[in-house]
Amino acid sequence: MTEEGQVYFQDAWPSELGVECFGCGRNNENGLQIKSYWEGDEAICEWQPKDYHKAFLRNTCGGIIATVIDCHCTNTAIAYVYKLENRKLGTKPIPLYVTGSISVKLIKPTPLGRPIRFVARIKEMTERKIITTCDVFYRKRKTAEGEVTLIKLKIQN
Amino acid sequence: MTEEGQVYFQDAWPSELGVECFGCGRNNENGLQIKSYWEGDEAICEWQPKDYHKAFLRNTCGGIIATVIDCHCTNTAIAYVYKLENRKLGTKPIPLYVTGSISVKLIKPTPLGRPIRFVARIKEMTERKIITTCDVFYRKRKTAEGEVTLIKLKIQN
Repeated sequence: MTEEGQVYFQDAWPSELGVECFGCGRNNENGLQIKSYWEGDEAICEWQPKDYHKAFLRNTCGGIIATVIDCHCTNTAIAYVYKLENRKLGTKPIPLYVTGSISVKLIKPTPLGRPIRFVARIKEMTERKIITTCDVFYRKRKTAEGEVTLIKLKIQN
Repeated sequence: MTEEGQVYFQDAWPSELGVECFGCGRNNENGLQIKSYWEGDEAICEWQPKDYHKAFLRNTCGGIIATVIDCHCTNTAIAYVYKLENRKLGTKPIPLYVTGSISVKLIKPTPLGRPIRFVARIKEMTERKIITTCDVFYRKRKTAEGEVTLIKLKIQN
């Protein structure tokens, strides 16, 4: 839960919804266990890499940054559908979405030492998909940006 | 070393070159420790995900696939420069490249059970960068594809 008492998206999902995912699953002890929450129309994820998430020198691995962007954006898209429908996070039916594509531009190195801030937004929504964007900051300096397209799954739940 | 006695790219690099990288570092015990080698003009990486690399259901996390694509393509680009210059892998000066951008399209789910095959190629090379592509296969079925742009570092070594 955030300081303002907001439940993190990942903690609201029922057990069917990725709770063991490497990037965002709350039950994956070997995973990144990212947490996302709303700050107005933006979804925030503050995440601290471990030393072994390095690329080379003292910088964070680009693939790990892509992983956090992907999972944070997926969680944001699902939370957005709940918000649009004015429903409590995690209630059934779950709006299921999976990643169709990820693109990430690494602008500068992102050091390992402090939490990295990921700021996601909804860019576009159609019947079949949601396009999200995400900016990445290390100490207020933007170091990367990404776009993730989520495809709606047609599974009843 | 491969069955044909070829040294994996990652095992040829000197200690300055990403040997602790999360994706490809041979010395990162918490990392993916991928291994890449040439098969003609293509670079191959066969990599077996662990159970905790899942997304949801029994499929591999998209961010982990992006991480392997990124690292495999980076290693391939560097190995390609050695090949072009007809030099032994790992000799000085090291042609240093870092990822500028990654894009990945997830076409179908990639299950966790067996090794995943990543096939990388050089698409384009200029003075400043190398563009690589990578196809991803699970049991001969293509499940994803990606493109990684590597930027040449101007560091003497």
